[in-house]
Amino acid sequence: MNVKEYMAELGQQARVASRAIAKADTGIKNRALLAMADAIDTSREQLVAANAKDLAQGRENGLDDAMLDRLELKQSQIDTMIEGLRQVAALPDPIGAITDMNYQPSGIQVGKMRVPLGVVGIIYESRPNVTVEAASLCLKSGNATILRGGSEAIHSNTAVAECIQAGLKAAGLPENTVQVVKTTDREAVGELITMPEYVDVIVPRGGKSLIERVSRDAKVMVIKHLDGICHVYIDVDADKSKAINVAINAKTHRYGTCNTMETLLVHSDRAEDILPELAGQYQSLGVELRGCEKTRLLLPEIKEATEIDWETEYLGPVLSIKLVDDMDEAIEHINRYGSHHTDSIITENYTLSRRFLREVDSSSVMVNASTRFADGFEYGLGAEVGISTDKIHARGPVGLEGLTSQKYVVLGDGHVRQ
Amino acid sequence: MNVKEYMAELGQQARVASRAIAKADTGIKNRALLAMADAIDTSREQLVAANAKDLAQGRENGLDDAMLDRLELKQSQIDTMIEGLRQVAALPDPIGAITDMNYQPSGIQVGKMRVPLGVVGIIYESRPNVTVEAASLCLKSGNATILRGGSEAIHSNTAVAECIQAGLKAAGLPENTVQVVKTTDREAVGELITMPEYVDVIVPRGGKSLIERVSRDAKVMVIKHLDGICHVYIDVDADKSKAINVAINAKTHRYGTCNTMETLLVHSDRAEDILPELAGQYQSLGVELRGCEKTRLLLPEIKEATEIDWETEYLGPVLSIKLVDDMDEAIEHINRYGSHHTDSIITENYTLSRRFLREVDSSSVMVNASTRFADGFEYGLGAEVGISTDKIHARGPVGLEGLTSQKYVVLGDGHVRQ
Repeated sequence: MNVKEYMAELGQQARVASRAIAKADTGIKNRALLAMADAIDTSREQLVAANAKDLAQGRENGLDDAMLDRLELKQSQIDTMIEGLRQVAALPDPIGAITDMNYQPSGIQVGKMRVPLGVVGIIYESRPNVTVEAASLCLKSGNATILRGGSEAIHSNTAVAECIQAGLKAAGLPENTVQVVKTTDREAVGELITMPEYVDVIVPRGGKSLIERVSRDAKVMVIKHLDGICHVYIDVDADKSKAINVAINAKTHRYGTCNTMETLLVHSDRAEDILPELAGQYQSLGVELRGCEKTRLLLPEIKEATEIDWETEYLGPVLSIKLVDDMDEAIEHINRYGSHHTDSIITENYTLSRRFLREVDSSSVMVNASTRFADGFEYGLGAEVGISTDKIHARGPVGLEGLTSQKYVVLGDGHVRQ
Repeated sequence: MNVKEYMAELGQQARVASRAIAKADTGIKNRALLAMADAIDTSREQLVAANAKDLAQGRENGLDDAMLDRLELKQSQIDTMIEGLRQVAALPDPIGAITDMNYQPSGIQVGKMRVPLGVVGIIYESRPNVTVEAASLCLKSGNATILRGGSEAIHSNTAVAECIQAGLKAAGLPENTVQVVKTTDREAVGELITMPEYVDVIVPRGGKSLIERVSRDAKVMVIKHLDGICHVYIDVDADKSKAINVAINAKTHRYGTCNTMETLLVHSDRAEDILPELAGQYQSLGVELRGCEKTRLLLPEIKEATEIDWETEYLGPVLSIKLVDDMDEAIEHINRYGSHHTDSIITENYTLSRRFLREVDSSSVMVNASTRFADGFEYGLGAEVGISTDKIHARGPVGLEGLTSQKYVVLGDGHVRQ
């Protein structure tokens, strides 16, 4: 069987399974999730042994240390997988929920029922633990899933998939509810993202090049997140200690995450008061600063920030700083150079805070809080399949609801249209 | 200037205007809508004169009577445009609405704010009055709009556009908030649907071939509706008079609409009781019936329905009828042959009604009500830009909310992530 036929078969099977999982009741879905957690817990040795094969092969193939580190399935990650499955089981089931059931002048009663999307394709790179997170959310939201992991993690992914299958079986759900692509042929991804008859949405989890490729070629919706060029703007009415705490946290809490601040904007009337102290803290934490011309009048030792810096997601200990004359200039900079991900204002000014919330065109807009909070867990979604930088369908952290749609339900007593 | 450059210029201007209209307050948007209504009311003569030019040219070009009829701007349609604008002005403004503002364990408060999508491209065929409906909803929902009408209606559309511009001007909104494509070059559509940097969503209003072409080639989301193959299922526990009333209304209230029933499914245990009487009514109304083998045992005079009938949107006085042994067979038929648009069950059975609502995978699912109710006005949305048969982003009748997205808003007091 060639790859095209193989993927079409997976797709057909997923489509059939999606009808069963769409009507599965909450208890059965939760039993499957808890049984998956148990299966992973009792398969630790097999998981580590399978992972060791991938690691050995990776070393042979010359993967660098960072990649090997990402590939390694540590006990703490196994713990996180188990904990994650139990958390998803504990989340409320969105499917079937009916809202806004209102009577209309004609006498019919109209509302909306939340329904699954159908079949979700998940494409991910090294980290095998990512699989479980995405697959469990898809299951809870009543969708069938096709998982396509990186070829370098094929043994680990197959071992994880067996635990998932065991969980489905224990709950009496069709095993095709979650399917793992068993071929490492790269063509499989191309097929998966161009079968709108079988796959309704694609979630790519991995580096920018994967996401760009998938977005460009997909024939179905992609829940994607590209850059995270996030800003903190310290306003003229900022509280100094809040400003410094948030600016330090947003940059240095973790460097490699999409919700880390990359550019700091400071009202020029507060720069003298705040910047030198803040710069000292950054430098003692090993953060390289780059500044606009005005910034460098106050911090002459730092490098110049160029146009390219405003557009760069450093994902590392580098920060660009720009002084602005007012909030409008800050908002203009954010909407122009940012990636519409997460931006925060530090201010005590009521009117400016309301305007910033309304006018900044980003998936998360904050007042007096660190950009690092932009996260499904922190937002109370329970978990996330990713953070969407799109406006269509899902925006910001995507939890269970982003994997669903709604249909109208209409109740009558023999009503006909006049 | 070539078409590509011209469309890019419109796109850039729309993008700039979209920022202004996104933050325009409710009062200003309503003033613009009411001023548009007044401008149309006082321009009746100019509108009719412009329309007469299109009609004369249409006759010259050999348009058939049906097309000329659709092209004609009647006084009653002008009334409807005016009334529609006033209704949209009276609708609540969705933009800026904040919901679900809940405190999280970290101490931050997280909610969602409704925001515009940005720039909406509307592509429509003959009917000039459609423009106003779609443009007014886009304006109220804070979006900029680019309108591309059919070349056969260019004079009418230009005249309508002048009224729209007058309304924008009267309210002090940028005139580029609503732009009309002034070239009749067909290439303009191709450009409009492939400028994701300037256009966020496309709404095609017209025949199936237009919608298919747009959906196939667009590089942005399309709010589209393809077929409307709707079903009524008369269950074993149906009330006979409700069944007959709804079945007659769903088929014969209007033939050419997408929410008209095309296939009637009848539980075989109720066929003898209901079908002959119902068939008599259909035949007296001039509806041609086609039936499955079992149906034809009861109604031997009617034609046979073939596989093709189950997949056909007749849009006319034709109805296919199939007997089924139970609701499961009905649901299977609907999910397989239907277009996931609107389907209704006629039953007094509580358990079956709940299962039908949950298991039928359509944008509107009904109990004891005519499929003809699937409509933005009937659902209380105030108006609609179309009925979406997609599951992504918007499903069913699309009103103001379908033209919006949400962003997260986070309020803190200097909160940092631990």
